[in-house]
Amino acid sequence: MVEKTIELTGISSNSIEDAVSLAVSRASVTISGIHTAEVTHVAAVVENNKVARWKVRVKLSFIVKDELHE
Amino acid sequence: MVEKTIELTGISSNSIEDAVSLAVSRASVTISGIHTAEVTHVAAVVENNKVARWKVRVKLSFIVKDELHE
Amino acid sequence: MVEKTIELTGISSNSIEDAVSLAVSRASVTISGIHTAEVTHVAAVVENNKVARWKVRVKLSFIVKDELHE
Amino acid sequence: MVEKTIELTGISSNSIEDAVSLAVSRASVTISGIHTAEVTHVAAVVENNKVARWKVRVKLSFIVKDELHE
Amino acid sequence: MVEKTIELTGISSNSIEDAVSLAVSRASVTISGIHTAEVTHVAAVVENNKVARWKVRVKLSFIVKDELHE
Amino acid sequence: MVEKTIELTGISSNSIEDAVSLAVSRASVTISGIHTAEVTHVAAVVENNKVARWKVRVKLSFIVKDELHE
Amino acid sequence: MVEKTIELTGISSNSIEDAVSLAVSRASVTISGIHTAEVTHVAAVVENNKVARWKVRVKLSFIVKDELHE
Amino acid sequence: MVEKTIELTGISSNSIEDAVSLAVSRASVTISGIHTAEVTHVAAVVENNKVARWKVRVKLSFIVKDELHE
Amino acid sequence: MVEKTIELTGISSNSIEDAVSLAVSRASVTISGIHTAEVTHVAAVVENNKVARWKVRVKLSFIVKDELHE
Amino acid sequence: MVEKTIELTGISSNSIEDAVSLAVSRASVTISGIHTAEVTHVAAVVENNKVARWKVRVKLSFIVKDELHE
Amino acid sequence: MVEKTIELTGISSNSIEDAVSLAVSRASVTISGIHTAEVTHVAAVVENNKVARWKVRVKLSFIVKDELHE
Amino acid sequence: MVEKTIELTGISSNSIEDAVSLAVSRASVTISGIHTAEVTHVAAVVENNKVARWKVRVKLSFIVKDELHE
Repeated sequence: MVEKTIELTGISSNSIEDAVSLAVSRASVTISGIHTAEVTHVAAVVENNKVARWKVRVKLSFIVKDELHE
Repeated sequence: MVEKTIELTGISSNSIEDAVSLAVSRASVTISGIHTAEVTHVAAVVENNKVARWKVRVKLSFIVKDELHE
Repeated sequence: MVEKTIELTGISSNSIEDAVSLAVSRASVTISGIHTAEVTHVAAVVENNKVARWKVRVKLSFIVKDELHE
Repeated sequence: MVEKTIELTGISSNSIEDAVSLAVSRASVTISGIHTAEVTHVAAVVENNKVARWKVRVKLSFIVKDELHE
Repeated sequence: MVEKTIELTGISSNSIEDAVSLAVSRASVTISGIHTAEVTHVAAVVENNKVARWKVRVKLSFIVKDELHE
Repeated sequence: MVEKTIELTGISSNSIEDAVSLAVSRASVTISGIHTAEVTHVAAVVENNKVARWKVRVKLSFIVKDELHE
Repeated sequence: MVEKTIELTGISSNSIEDAVSLAVSRASVTISGIHTAEVTHVAAVVENNKVARWKVRVKLSFIVKDELHE
Repeated sequence: MVEKTIELTGISSNSIEDAVSLAVSRASVTISGIHTAEVTHVAAVVENNKVARWKVRVKLSFIVKDELHE
Repeated sequence: MVEKTIELTGISSNSIEDAVSLAVSRASVTISGIHTAEVTHVAAVVENNKVARWKVRVKLSFIVKDELHE
Repeated sequence: MVEKTIELTGISSNSIEDAVSLAVSRASVTISGIHTAEVTHVAAVVENNKVARWKVRVKLSFIVKDELHE
Repeated sequence: MVEKTIELTGISSNSIEDAVSLAVSRASVTISGIHTAEVTHVAAVVENNKVARWKVRVKLSFIVKDELHE
Repeated sequence: MVEKTIELTGISSNSIEDAVSLAVSRASVTISGIHTAEVTHVAAVVENNKVARWKVRVKLSFIVKDELHE
């Protein structure tokens, strides 16, 4: 059995958790079987002296079923 | 004075903060004097294309009062 | 163009996000043009077996406009 | 010349080496020209008090010949 | 749910895998429900110009069921 | 909004900067909207006692517009 | 043979070495066979503009003889 | 003797070296005695499929002569 | 509440501890409320085949009371 | 007493363990008293879609008896 | 087959690339078969408010043919 | 100009500083021009429930004057 891990960054104005969920649901449209999301970097975009958006980089892992893309 | 540090992982379906709190309260049942929880790893378990649970690893530190266990 | 990065720790009893926002707004009183806050360390102060405060260290970056202080 | 690096996890009940080989051969079905596999993480799944499977994360590198996928 | 992680070093004259398995089975005598062993350090003890023993440090994780020891 | 990050290695006989530019332009043939390239590793291939080629690994990030490939 | 590693922090007003020695002797009351202490973090508590105490985190390793505690 | 280290990011469209030099000369307007610049992060801003600017984060160190600012 | 962290290097011919103390006392002339000094790097300057000076880099943290300087 | 540490890479078509052993025995021809080999990097050379060779970088440590070479 | 890795720092007033090349050519006078130079640290010596020299630390690897020196 | 960096471990029953000094003076017997010793690892050998010896690994750097040894 082989798993693949890809790196996405979810961006949300609500929360760190929301940014992760966004990355997971966006990836799930075309990739099935994602089982884990590891958070590797958390940052905030600041605009007008306030946190405007959370940018959370995650590593998503899933079992490889079909062809592996280059 | 000597402190001990142990590593726990709190698991919660609500939030990252909730997972940390869970680890702290579970440990506090038998360990008194915990003063710090450092977050060392944050991951999410994904089920049915959604974040189902937050798994947050923490290092809990407390002052050693009684015997140290092996 | 030159940016400067400073290291602050926001402390909040509410959430990790709130601690970051606090650091950003406190810095914005005297520093203009902050655009990014990178989270580098997350810890919780534990009191009476509960998380009492979130301590989140962030690196704030902003464009240097005026004089650089030693 | 440009190379691409992807991250896979080989899972084998035999050995660490076997898990790496599995990831390499699975990737080679659709990707040609893989020349290196760097091991970045080694873990074991434990079941019934025994190591049941080796999970070895590798970074596979290969020369980009055709189109790069998003 | 809360998991605990402890750090052991398995020592074996046979192989890296064997050293991990040894740490897992030794821990399983008194700890039930170990599910993962992450390898964090691999070294070899050299005697008479030969590798005499493999020393492999692992982080073992298991679900906390009963009391947590200090 | 979701971004993806992929890992490429640009190889150039001229300079470190040229190797990064090569990776960026090669990726841009099929991927639109790349906005950042982070350098994660710099090495040189040595031939006949001279640096023959610079190999620079970069993480390229871009906004996900269409389908995400496995 | 299996070794266990635990994490303690020795706190001393004298020196970094003294803080390590304190952690070692406190642990030795109940744990026999400690053979190594690796220093992983050194900090100083500052009071009234002076270093008041050295806090030195160490990883203590010892051979497991009896039962392993959860 | 005490040195201070500050973190700047030089941004240049020419080269990595030029970005470092820019940070050094900008800081030198108000800070005297800078003796070292350590490169800690190199990235490129990509625009229209090309590297538009090099962003190089450096740690600048200098001997503290006058008052230290908060 | 917000804390700031600055990076200094204390240099002393006596000891590592002395170098840290020097950085703390020098910073305390103009900054009040320093509570922690984390050691991040220890080096020795060697002259005439002997250690001539200890250079110890520390991160000093203190509560921000007044204005934050750029 | 003073130890020296050198960095070698053993290359073997058999296994990770074999690659370490090879580095140890090759070094032992001219260096006596090697006592430890720490594994710092594991990679595989891939040829024809298969792992052809294991390349394992180790740090070998030994007590310095005679002259230290530049 | 066994490779050795040594650590050199090339120092050049021209560029980062030049500093690496210098280290490679200096080492090649007495060591044959160097095939790779990995950059592990980049710094600049600053004099009179300008970058005076680039100091680039590299790990040079080569196949061991003759005797290994202590 | 080219510098070389070698890795030694000084072992002393007195102090961390003494262990570094020992490595420096031992290396200086055959190597001239050592200018820096960076501490990379500090450990203590424990015997009979007490710290018996400090083992401090250092990276010693010096300017290459004569031939570089393999």
